[in-house]
Amino acid sequence: RPGRILNEVLFFPSEMACVEHIFTPSLPHSCLCPLPHGVETSFSLLLQYILSASSSLDLCVFAFSNMDLSRAVLALHSRGVTIRVLSDKDYVAITGSQIGVLRKAGICVRCDVGSVYMHHKFAVVDSRLLITGSLNWTLQAVQGNMENILITEEPKLVQPFVKEFHRLWARNDPA
Amino acid sequence: RPGRILNEVLFFPSEMACVEHIFTPSLPHSCLCPLPHGVETSFSLLLQYILSASSSLDLCVFAFSNMDLSRAVLALHSRGVTIRVLSDKDYVAITGSQIGVLRKAGICVRCDVGSVYMHHKFAVVDSRLLITGSLNWTLQAVQGNMENILITEEPKLVQPFVKEFHRLWARNDPA
Ligand SMILES: [Zn+2]
Ligand SMILES: [Zn+2]
Repeated sequence: RPGRILNEVLFFPSEMACVEHIFTPSLPHSCLCPLPHGVETSFSLLLQYILSASSSLDLCVFAFSNMDLSRAVLALHSRGVTIRVLSDKDYVAITGSQIGVLRKAGICVRCDVGSVYMHHKFAVVDSRLLITGSLNWTLQAVQGNMENILITEEPKLVQPFVKEFHRLWARNDPA
Repeated sequence: RPGRILNEVLFFPSEMACVEHIFTPSLPHSCLCPLPHGVETSFSLLLQYILSASSSLDLCVFAFSNMDLSRAVLALHSRGVTIRVLSDKDYVAITGSQIGVLRKAGICVRCDVGSVYMHHKFAVVDSRLLITGSLNWTLQAVQGNMENILITEEPKLVQPFVKEFHRLWARNDPA
C-alpha cells in the first residue's frame, strides 16, 4: 500500500501546448488554436492535478497571474469545490494579478498582513495531495524559468502543509 | 521498510539561534555569542541535513549568500565530500554571493549559461536525500521570509532531481 502513494516531480519550463482539452474534455479535437495539440506537458499535468480536486483546494501563493491556473481555480469553484486562497498583500495589487478576478467570482481570498514576505507557492488538494516547489503561478514561471514542482500524497509531507495553511489562514482572518 | 524513509518539512522564517555547536560539536557549551543556545530550529536542522553528506553534495541554487550555508559546504569540501554547485550566471556577481568563495576553495562551480532564468533551489545529498523548496540560500530567506523546505529520501521524488542535476551539469560544461 505505501507503494501506491503518488509521488511525482514536474520540471519547467513547460513545452508550449494547447490545454483547451483539459477544460473542455467533451470537445477533444475541436480546438483551432495554433499551439500543438495532444501533447502532455508539465503544465498540462499540473493543471490536471489541480482540477482533480473534488472537495477542497487550499492555495498559498505570493504571485498569481497565470490565466490558465486562474481558469482552473474558477472551474473548481463553479463545480462547488471549496477554495481558499492566501496571497501576499504586496503582490495582489500588481498588474495581471488574478487575485481580484478570483475574489469577484466569490472565492474566499485572504492576504497575509504580516511584516514578513510570504514566499510560499503550494496547494493542497482535498487535504490529501500536496503540490509545491519553486514555481510561482505566473506565466513567466511556467514558460520561462527553470523550475520544479513536487506532487505527493505522502502524509508526512502533506500534513505539515495542511497545518501551516490552517495556521496562516486563521492568523489572517480579517474579522 | 517504506515507513522508514525520511520525509520531513521545515518552515521558515527560522528562529534566531546560535548554530556554532553544529560546526564544532566538540565544544558544545563554549560559545559566548549573544544568540540563544541549545535551540533546535528549522535552520539548524537544515544545516545538519546538509552536513550529513558523506560522499557527495549536488547543489542547484540561483542565489547563495548565506554565510552559514557556505560554511557548511566548505566544511564538507574539506572533509573530502565531492561538491558540485550549479548557479545562475546573473546572480554570481552580486554582492554577498558566496559562489566566488566556494570557487576559491577549490569547489567545482558551474553557472547556467542558458537564456532561461534558473529558479531552482535544491540539494541532493549522497544521491539519496533531496532538500528542496521555496527557500533561497540567502540570509533574507532564512530569517526573513515565510518559506518551506521538504526533505525526503523517497526515490520517486529524489531520482528526478538527480537526473535533472546531471542534465543541467552536463549542459553547462565549460569545456
Ligand atoms: Zn488549441
Ligand atoms: Zn553562540
